[in-house]
Amino acid sequence: MKLNKYAKIIITGGLALSLLPAAAVEQKVTAAEAAPASKNLIVLIGDGMGPAQVTAGRDYLKYIKNINHLELDSYYVGQATTFADRGEDGGVVVSGIVTDSASAGTAFATGHKTYNAGISVSNEDISLPFASVLEAAEAAGKVTGLVTTARITHATPAVYGSHVRSRDNESAIASQYLDSGIDVLFGGGKQFFTTTAEKGKRTDKNIIGDFQTKGYEVAYDAAGLASIKSSKALGLFNSSHVAYTPDRDETVPSLAQMTGKALDILSKDTNGFAIMIEGGRIDHASHANDFSTTIDEVLDFDAAVKVAMDFAKKDGNTSVVITADHETGGLSLARDNIYESNYDLWDKQKHSSESIAAVLKAAKTPEEIKQIVQGNTWITDLTDEEITQIMAGDGSSYGREGSYNAVIAKRLLIGWTGHGHSGVDVGVWAYGPIADLVKGQVDNTDIAKSSAKVLGVDLDAATAKLQAKTIYPKFKINRNKEVLYPAKALAEKMGITVAYDDASRAVKLTGSAGEYSVNVDSLAVSWNGAADSITAENDYGKLYLPLSAFSKLTGKSLVWDSLSERILLP
Amino acid sequence: MKLNKYAKIIITGGLALSLLPAAAVEQKVTAAEAAPASKNLIVLIGDGMGPAQVTAGRDYLKYIKNINHLELDSYYVGQATTFADRGEDGGVVVSGIVTDSASAGTAFATGHKTYNAGISVSNEDISLPFASVLEAAEAAGKVTGLVTTARITHATPAVYGSHVRSRDNESAIASQYLDSGIDVLFGGGKQFFTTTAEKGKRTDKNIIGDFQTKGYEVAYDAAGLASIKSSKALGLFNSSHVAYTPDRDETVPSLAQMTGKALDILSKDTNGFAIMIEGGRIDHASHANDFSTTIDEVLDFDAAVKVAMDFAKKDGNTSVVITADHETGGLSLARDNIYESNYDLWDKQKHSSESIAAVLKAAKTPEEIKQIVQGNTWITDLTDEEITQIMAGDGSSYGREGSYNAVIAKRLLIGWTGHGHSGVDVGVWAYGPIADLVKGQVDNTDIAKSSAKVLGVDLDAATAKLQAKTIYPKFKINRNKEVLYPAKALAEKMGITVAYDDASRAVKLTGSAGEYSVNVDSLAVSWNGAADSITAENDYGKLYLPLSAFSKLTGKSLVWDSLSERILLP
Repeated sequence: MKLNKYAKIIITGGLALSLLPAAAVEQKVTAAEAAPASKNLIVLIGDGMGPAQVTAGRDYLKYIKNINHLELDSYYVGQATTFADRGEDGGVVVSGIVTDSASAGTAFATGHKTYNAGISVSNEDISLPFASVLEAAEAAGKVTGLVTTARITHATPAVYGSHVRSRDNESAIASQYLDSGIDVLFGGGKQFFTTTAEKGKRTDKNIIGDFQTKGYEVAYDAAGLASIKSSKALGLFNSSHVAYTPDRDETVPSLAQMTGKALDILSKDTNGFAIMIEGGRIDHASHANDFSTTIDEVLDFDAAVKVAMDFAKKDGNTSVVITADHETGGLSLARDNIYESNYDLWDKQKHSSESIAAVLKAAKTPEEIKQIVQGNTWITDLTDEEITQIMAGDGSSYGREGSYNAVIAKRLLIGWTGHGHSGVDVGVWAYGPIADLVKGQVDNTDIAKSSAKVLGVDLDAATAKLQAKTIYPKFKINRNKEVLYPAKALAEKMGITVAYDDASRAVKLTGSAGEYSVNVDSLAVSWNGAADSITAENDYGKLYLPLSAFSKLTGKSLVWDSLSERILLP
Repeated sequence: MKLNKYAKIIITGGLALSLLPAAAVEQKVTAAEAAPASKNLIVLIGDGMGPAQVTAGRDYLKYIKNINHLELDSYYVGQATTFADRGEDGGVVVSGIVTDSASAGTAFATGHKTYNAGISVSNEDISLPFASVLEAAEAAGKVTGLVTTARITHATPAVYGSHVRSRDNESAIASQYLDSGIDVLFGGGKQFFTTTAEKGKRTDKNIIGDFQTKGYEVAYDAAGLASIKSSKALGLFNSSHVAYTPDRDETVPSLAQMTGKALDILSKDTNGFAIMIEGGRIDHASHANDFSTTIDEVLDFDAAVKVAMDFAKKDGNTSVVITADHETGGLSLARDNIYESNYDLWDKQKHSSESIAAVLKAAKTPEEIKQIVQGNTWITDLTDEEITQIMAGDGSSYGREGSYNAVIAKRLLIGWTGHGHSGVDVGVWAYGPIADLVKGQVDNTDIAKSSAKVLGVDLDAATAKLQAKTIYPKFKINRNKEVLYPAKALAEKMGITVAYDDASRAVKLTGSAGEYSVNVDSLAVSWNGAADSITAENDYGKLYLPLSAFSKLTGKSLVWDSLSERILLP
């Protein structure tokens, strides 16, 4: 029996994980059979970069900068579907089918669909982790990196180096990076490495020192980035996301600069590398419906594409694949019934709409609104109607920033249909041996599968190793602050037999080390026939038990990792 | 000197056309140098089928019909830019840059950009015709066909078989088909073949008999289509466009049926064929923002793709290329901030919104609106707010049909940003030898160039032949119903020297046969020094003269074709 098949059963069949000694699994781990076609892999993700965002970036270059095409354009090979696992067939978390960055990222990083918000875990009540191509590359002895203009703990980088049920658990993601072996981490998100006392978000401790102890050189600005000498580096270029391109000063590195430095560091390793580089804020600008900043971010991304392609061409042993996770905003390049585009106005906003959101919100008079708009744009003739529209907000959480962008969109002759994502296919661009694997009409999971194949690393084996060590259950915390788990689902995942005896009105859980019996009315618990003091709770007909019950049933010492909200298997 | 180069100079340089005897041009016409890679060419155009329309069609199959992909999907090779010639660099007609079907069609049929509304003519005051790949195929002895669900005289078919300054001149387009040599013409648009007395649109004559005289068998419904035996056929399946898919009865052929019949007829010819098949009403449904019908039309098109691909695979000597002219409506698959899609409602509209537009418009009471909506959809709980919205119309020419579709779009969780086209790149799909020529990021003009190359036919030579015979000038008709032409522009295009003599305040036009002098104040005209009675007019400083002046100057008998609004060169 081949391991690939074997691992697949574990992933999809919910077999008795704890009954498989980790060593046995490891023993069977072998490299994928195909000869690796590339020593190095560069994945570039334009977050929120749908078809219209790409055309907009090119049109800007063409009509404003007199440059005929994007760097990207030369490498177009296909398009990818992006849908999330809705949870109706298979998975249990019922999710919107229009993907978020977590679900899409899980797909192109690990090759598996999941629900929106899931970070490289399966869509189940008791989720299992899926390994990413970076984790598989680590296992194969390669060095790895993550680079983004978003927080380094944001969904797209997170899916490559961590596993959590919710993308919002960014402190856990930061902590998991420490153990991930990822060598280069550049982005924003310092707040998830520092404590609330330091104006960060962590309630436990500052973990930057832990990175330094492990040999990471830490940088906080462009100068710091440039001077990094170590083979391991952590760059945190803002508390939250890295500043938008139009809002940066010289202390803030561009995505191209981060990319160049990361490739410098990683390419020194003789075993090869795998890196994911994200233009993380195309998405944010499109969420805000800030068209001008959307274009700036597409071009910031495109400049990083050039750095990556220049490296790959010179290196001769590197595959590059580029895609997006989804479209954002429902952008259209034209609106109403007008067959025209006001390109000449596309470069007339000074800073992002985000940079003026606070003053717009605080403005009390039409005159103030007028001054703010005039200060950031070409608009000296804001009409009363436009002022009224801006002051009213757009009904979304973007408020006046949204209505300001709506006024500008109308003048630019471009359209948005909302502040969320949309389901249109996204482009795929590639260079090197991976190009033949991802051409044509593909699904985003094919990006992960092709990434692994071209590197000659084994996603299934890496996933099997992870699944032998960690489980990500749904859980609840009761009024006594005890953590309780859905007994039936967790038991089944761990190979414990669950039966219900109608006569005694008892649920019986039978593990290799003994049997728990729980009366569903009194919630009295017995262990091998003797009364036991563990907590049992019944929530709308669903039995919950603490982890100690499962340790006893399996005869194994199970540990709850409360930060990452996962069970550690021995 | 090679002809290709020579022809190119004629096209772009505005040289003295009338000085080149047509025979000399014809003499130099040779086949393109590359060996033809395919005997037959099938071009399929999804009008208005942008990226989101394609994803929508696939999602419908997937979530409603349990079919995993479109026929199209297997053949995806790239995407194409679609912009029109704005007229600022080169061309003179200042056009919106967001393309219409005429400009996009001219690009993918002839390889040249033009202004919106131009049907295979250049963007100039004195336009020249561009030959289409079908015309070049005719010249190479192949048989040809045009198939569409729109009027056969609509822009997309028109660009392959006719030349007019304005797409609205559909009577001229129909008449030009008669002389085009195109063997199979299937679509709607009977009104442009019949007279106003017959409820048609022509003011001259019914021309269907002329087609019959030339050997065309004529069909008006599905049964008639099926029974065609001739090698030349004209199918007119409605007065205007062929009915939308959801509104058809069994008398109306599908695009797949028309495609199958056309391929049957054309494939009998041993010299090979070239055909363009258009899903013409995806665009119309998207213009109306009728999502359900948009999908029906995408699937009607996709079924024709299957017929074409089945033929090509069996035949083994056929290239197929598929693209769209532009996106229509600014469609997004999601809206507002909701990451979900209500697929289950996608098949719940009975007929097109067009089919109920008239009764919606006529409705007087909220109850009537409610009944109409209930009669055509799943909606039994139309809210007061929705009723008010429908009754108010959407502010566009679509009126209540537009607001009805807006109400439905909100319930389906899809978005539109208007009733016009948008500028996003469109997909390219291909099969056979042409696939390698159109892959990656291309422009729509590359479709024409690759079409000609793969067939081994010569677009430049065919264009040179057309340009030696016809000119498409701007013109005016004065109060005496005389047709007058801009003298300087037309003279220069015909190799007539134009000079202005300040002393005598006279414009002098010097041709091979003599000289006209026109006083710009008195508008007195002299021919070789003697007074002449022709009309001269000065419109805002622009001199206008009748065609007779140019006949005299060139010594050639120039003829004005008033239907096609073109000058016929001898």
